[in-house]
Amino acid sequence: MRPRAAIVVTGSELVRGERTDRNGPFLAGRLLLLGVDPARISIVGDDPGELGAALGIALDADLCVVSGGLGPTHDDRTVELVARVAGRALVLDNALREEIGSVSRRIAERLRRPYSDFELGVRKQATLPEGALSLGIVGTAPGFVLETERAPVVVLPGPPAELQQLWPRALDTEPLRRVLERARKPARRVLRFYGASESAIAKALADAGGERDGVVATICARDFEIHVDLLVDPGAAARGDEVERGLAEPLAEYLFTRDEQRVEEIVLEACRGRGWSLATAESCTGGLVAARLTSVPGSSAVFLGSVVAYSNSVKHSELGVSPALVETHGAVSAEAAAAMAAGARKRLGADVAVAVTGIAGPEGGTAEKPVGLVFLHAETPEGGHGIEFTLPGDRETIRSRATVAALHLVRRLLARNSHKDV
Amino acid sequence: MRPRAAIVVTGSELVRGERTDRNGPFLAGRLLLLGVDPARISIVGDDPGELGAALGIALDADLCVVSGGLGPTHDDRTVELVARVAGRALVLDNALREEIGSVSRRIAERLRRPYSDFELGVRKQATLPEGALSLGIVGTAPGFVLETERAPVVVLPGPPAELQQLWPRALDTEPLRRVLERARKPARRVLRFYGASESAIAKALADAGGERDGVVATICARDFEIHVDLLVDPGAAARGDEVERGLAEPLAEYLFTRDEQRVEEIVLEACRGRGWSLATAESCTGGLVAARLTSVPGSSAVFLGSVVAYSNSVKHSELGVSPALVETHGAVSAEAAAAMAAGARKRLGADVAVAVTGIAGPEGGTAEKPVGLVFLHAETPEGGHGIEFTLPGDRETIRSRATVAALHLVRRLLARNSHKDV
Repeated sequence: MRPRAAIVVTGSELVRGERTDRNGPFLAGRLLLLGVDPARISIVGDDPGELGAALGIALDADLCVVSGGLGPTHDDRTVELVARVAGRALVLDNALREEIGSVSRRIAERLRRPYSDFELGVRKQATLPEGALSLGIVGTAPGFVLETERAPVVVLPGPPAELQQLWPRALDTEPLRRVLERARKPARRVLRFYGASESAIAKALADAGGERDGVVATICARDFEIHVDLLVDPGAAARGDEVERGLAEPLAEYLFTRDEQRVEEIVLEACRGRGWSLATAESCTGGLVAARLTSVPGSSAVFLGSVVAYSNSVKHSELGVSPALVETHGAVSAEAAAAMAAGARKRLGADVAVAVTGIAGPEGGTAEKPVGLVFLHAETPEGGHGIEFTLPGDRETIRSRATVAALHLVRRLLARNSHKDV
Repeated sequence: MRPRAAIVVTGSELVRGERTDRNGPFLAGRLLLLGVDPARISIVGDDPGELGAALGIALDADLCVVSGGLGPTHDDRTVELVARVAGRALVLDNALREEIGSVSRRIAERLRRPYSDFELGVRKQATLPEGALSLGIVGTAPGFVLETERAPVVVLPGPPAELQQLWPRALDTEPLRRVLERARKPARRVLRFYGASESAIAKALADAGGERDGVVATICARDFEIHVDLLVDPGAAARGDEVERGLAEPLAEYLFTRDEQRVEEIVLEACRGRGWSLATAESCTGGLVAARLTSVPGSSAVFLGSVVAYSNSVKHSELGVSPALVETHGAVSAEAAAAMAAGARKRLGADVAVAVTGIAGPEGGTAEKPVGLVFLHAETPEGGHGIEFTLPGDRETIRSRATVAALHLVRRLLARNSHKDV
């Protein structure tokens, strides 16, 4: 049995739904990769009763990880409550107080406020449960690890960047090493599919015998992509192979990567491999395809730019789409998509272009051309391909699905060209 | 005291961190607006021990809301465990079985699988705890409300769209009405700030006496915007006014809206009011500004399009930025931003344009022009304004902050023009 971890996340803005928690998913994902089972994520607010209760239950697990509530104000109660639940006194660490004090002095200067405003908070943040192992500071609050009579507790600051920076230091402490000794770090296999239904993936997994005998499968579907992660316990590699084959073989035409590369990275890499430059011509996606491509560091080696042609006048002036074509076929048509792609190649000087035109809604739909109707066209020096969708969902969903569909269309076209297969 | 709600979210992909939970934040936000205090959000996976334990604790609240685990497979245990914790038998509802059955038959046909594959699942999904009030079906699983000897339990399907559709029906049941009778629905006041530090907001709130006496303040900061929601209990309006004034007056220059309008909506509305069209010219933001503007339904009435000029050749060919300018000042400069804005106005025929050029990183920075350096320029028929930032953070953060800064730059320029004030 894997060691089990309980994650407690505190933050009034989180329990009130103002902000979505990122620490729980981050910690859970990291724990899983270490061979520890994330059993529960509990999100509580400032109420000391709730936090105390959540900690009390969490200490029944093999490991407890707590985030948030380490600030300088009276609402920040994590240290006090961890100490109480663990039956420890609170101790002021003078070295820590000096360290936090000098950070706070710089902040006080920058904000032009007297340091005396900060002094109580500094003292509070330098006060830890007796026996705590400080992980150091990346903001003003130190993370720490506390051994208890029950589970060891890892306490980390709430801001995700600070938490993520301190987490590896926690793994390097004696209490965590002892927990991880009992964990069997699984091997991770990644399969990403595009265009298959979640139901088809579920069926393939079930036909392969499902999750058992040391293989855990997580399936995450979004915008037509389905990400499957197989976590394979040591010693279960043969079973892992079986499950992997059971997914990859029947669904081979949908499998687009066996690692975590995003589709935009695959597209840029394929262009780079051919020495080709890339551009987009977008209407309803409004720049989302270009934004995804440019989110990849180094994309400027391949990506030249985009024309977001939201009005027909811009389709004409910047992409050379003739008014006659728009008159005859409409701005949302296979012909318009092909003309937009051709225009982007010509005007931006790109070898490869992908164009998207569609009706994102909620208005703009008609009987013949309903909301969700999208035409895509990708063109390379070796040929092109157009495709039509009627996408379900609201404006945001239609735009994001059209974006992903456009990226996969050009991915497949580039793969086809290089392998000379259909 | 407000009634307290415990939210239990089940989903193995959630507790493993594969996917971020959206149901908890949605339910918490809705409960808060009804005057119910969301005390805790617990995320658990398939383990029946964990779910049973979470439900057991949740029933100590005044209201328990559960999402997920209503599917047809053996891993879907919510109904069975709710029944067990509430001490109820499970009862097959034949009318429900027929209803779910006909939905499943259509799915079976579409997937070309025999209905017999689905029959056990249908039976399971039509089996509810005795006394449950069905809320109907929007997928295949019915939501329901169950009165217990402790808290009433609302059980909803996991898929967020289904949950959000069924939630209002739950509010319309007798058990929920009784809980809500004891709640005092607060009035909600919204204040959104741009450019103020979170610390300045916190100080203004503290100076105004802070959250007390029937006023709850949630502060959410992202990309330079700070969203403050004041929830004001009935009878606390005077205190609410005091807090609102205490925030709005000292921070008046940063306050950009008193409702939930997003900055892109404000920009489009301001353009529409002047009869002006809008375009963007983007480099490092790669289309993100255009994407945000086009996310607004009806934006096509104002927004003409964008040129994403990622390469200098495209800055030249599509925006008319002279190679000499780039040679002298660089592609990342105030001069380049101004030239890009002028080019977008001219080439796309737009009255208003905003341009962004910068270094998103991680590579590309130098001593004089570090990663995070961004130049923005907005131009209208009545004048223009340029601004420079050095933004901290990684590539994604720099791009999203530059996007928000660009939208606020054009917002302020349009506000200034119309009020003839600085």
